[in-house]
Amino acid sequence: MISEAMAGLGRKRSTIREIFEYGNERAKLVGRENIFDFSLGNPSVAPPDCVTDEINGFVAGEKPEVLHGYTSAVGLEWVRQAMADSLNSRYGTALRKEKFYRTVGAAASICITLKALSCPGDEFIVPAPYFPEYLCWIENTANAKCVLIPADPDDFQINFAETEKRITANTKAVIINSPNNPSGAVYSEETIVKLSELLNKASKKYGHPIYLISDEPYREIVFDGFDRPFVTKYYRNTIVCYSFSKSLSLPGERIGYVLVPDEVTDHDDVFAAVCGAGRILGYVNAPSLFQRVAGKCADKTADISIYNKNRDILYEGLTAAGYSCVKPRGAFYMFPRALEADEYAFCEKAKKYDLLLVPGTDFGCPGHVRIAYCVPTEKIERALPLFEKLAVEYGVK
Amino acid sequence: MISEAMAGLGRKRSTIREIFEYGNERAKLVGRENIFDFSLGNPSVAPPDCVTDEINGFVAGEKPEVLHGYTSAVGLEWVRQAMADSLNSRYGTALRKEKFYRTVGAAASICITLKALSCPGDEFIVPAPYFPEYLCWIENTANAKCVLIPADPDDFQINFAETEKRITANTKAVIINSPNNPSGAVYSEETIVKLSELLNKASKKYGHPIYLISDEPYREIVFDGFDRPFVTKYYRNTIVCYSFSKSLSLPGERIGYVLVPDEVTDHDDVFAAVCGAGRILGYVNAPSLFQRVAGKCADKTADISIYNKNRDILYEGLTAAGYSCVKPRGAFYMFPRALEADEYAFCEKAKKYDLLLVPGTDFGCPGHVRIAYCVPTEKIERALPLFEKLAVEYGVK
Repeated sequence: MISEAMAGLGRKRSTIREIFEYGNERAKLVGRENIFDFSLGNPSVAPPDCVTDEINGFVAGEKPEVLHGYTSAVGLEWVRQAMADSLNSRYGTALRKEKFYRTVGAAASICITLKALSCPGDEFIVPAPYFPEYLCWIENTANAKCVLIPADPDDFQINFAETEKRITANTKAVIINSPNNPSGAVYSEETIVKLSELLNKASKKYGHPIYLISDEPYREIVFDGFDRPFVTKYYRNTIVCYSFSKSLSLPGERIGYVLVPDEVTDHDDVFAAVCGAGRILGYVNAPSLFQRVAGKCADKTADISIYNKNRDILYEGLTAAGYSCVKPRGAFYMFPRALEADEYAFCEKAKKYDLLLVPGTDFGCPGHVRIAYCVPTEKIERALPLFEKLAVEYGVK
Repeated sequence: MISEAMAGLGRKRSTIREIFEYGNERAKLVGRENIFDFSLGNPSVAPPDCVTDEINGFVAGEKPEVLHGYTSAVGLEWVRQAMADSLNSRYGTALRKEKFYRTVGAAASICITLKALSCPGDEFIVPAPYFPEYLCWIENTANAKCVLIPADPDDFQINFAETEKRITANTKAVIINSPNNPSGAVYSEETIVKLSELLNKASKKYGHPIYLISDEPYREIVFDGFDRPFVTKYYRNTIVCYSFSKSLSLPGERIGYVLVPDEVTDHDDVFAAVCGAGRILGYVNAPSLFQRVAGKCADKTADISIYNKNRDILYEGLTAAGYSCVKPRGAFYMFPRALEADEYAFCEKAKKYDLLLVPGTDFGCPGHVRIAYCVPTEKIERALPLFEKLAVEYGVK
């Protein structure tokens, strides 16, 4: 006599959580230092000093009943201005503070956006590889249909041929995530331009805008000076879902935003719907202390060079050992091919070496495994000989 | 082509917010000190010192990437234990940490609980006076029917005759809020026992449990040594929705919990549904720093004696001036009768004296007005002569 759907969703343990807990049990037997847990996307790099400095500054300088008091639902005005200023100075945009809605992290940003946009019969397109919760949220939060696009495993850009086939009159939006979890791919300018053309054509054909939901919590984590295109500049009907979880290494504090630029068709209505969706999902305001901290630190990041170093060491080591892998350009994930078609079997074999990897099927890419390399660098260095032994076991090289 | 329902909910400004903004405009003309804004339920009393001390302690003593990292969805284990210990020591209960699900404040607690319980065709019963957002959440978050019970304006306990009439085979739960916003009433033991009997009888009659959702953010704010009954001890199918917003004066930080005691029918399923509902409403974990702060401060409160003093001064003054009012026993609201049947007209007249009050219709009680007295005491003292002039204008006394 309760919601069986909700109980089902609550009972189901995620693959990642199961691996993590397996690791905890193994750690009791062999020691934590001998477990190579690459399952979790929890930033290993400390937040930048400004985070601690700003917490201390606000706690010392502001009346506590003001500091910890309600803010307006959309967020503090100066913080929204700081969000706009930060993006405008980095991307040459002309975004206005009025179109920022502060949220309790990226999951909230996406759920609110889906709920704001969704009408009965709608379809949302998700190119693989994707963050697994998208499916749950599209189906259960938005009560909409999830349309998956198979990956292009050569480079993990978008598989346009398959995308074009799956756009229909019911397509409400496409969700992209670049830099990508789990592949580490960053969509090139060419990809974004092509996607924009495709969506413009389809919007015209079906007589209504197809929105692009750009989920970009890894936006700042890009390597080799690669110039990640800022999506709103390429496609007008882009809604940005952001979180400071990864850039400032504070995923537990739940702080992000939804941005509805003025270029978006009916942007005032869309923004109103974002506010309405936030209300009915139970959000009152984003946490007040961390709204302020994020406002002050919007231009800062944790020391991303550590992820870059980790990527270099891991990528060199794995390819030298005979693994096949698209070189990540951002985020802190690598997504090599498993050494047999059944990546679950491969993950089980890896466990013998206490290498904990996540099967790619959950991300829409069977045959691959996700390695979250947001771990201390020495862990990667000590893991490489084990990856090599595993490759030898498979007769690679 | 977006959700018109969401846009409508986002566009509608709340009465309270409109009054608040009117006050800001007036303040520019006549000075902030001359505006008597009793519209907002934002705690005016500073958080207890432990809040600031614990923030400083955690920031100084914990690695920042751990302090601000993800926690499990249900919350940190030691914090859940602290929640259980605090209630068990105060109420002689035997609650277990496993049945606490940490949330992003009371609104999240209620939305999650409604979503967890709701099945198609369900009805949720809400006795007036009530917190207005209940209606929005029942209809839009739970997609259920909201059944309102008229108030008993003699004491603002529950109107049982009307409640009994409205329970049907579709009744899923009753939502109560004691101490009550907007009346300040605290349900007596007699009320809770009577409600429990009524719900037990109805549960038996219809062959399924009727849940009691106890929304208790004002639980600790009770005056005159009144012994507020802890509801789970009286009715087994009680689910507690709590927030630290009012007891610790930190509403902006969004920290609370849902508690599903072991006595609840199918408590494991209900708890799983709570977890599932949290997931699809976009919650990942409650803010990590303030989980810890609340864990350490669970037995503390802000200086509630200030609200008691405010209540005494306001109640004495209003009744002496000829107003009719049920004496509040808790929270920080008073809910007198307006001096004419149309309380909107009354509120307009009050505005001439810069007394900003909230019409009772939104709370399900036409003819009353809400006074939020969580303001500096001197504001109340200076407001009383104005309330008196207003009464004289109406020819009272």
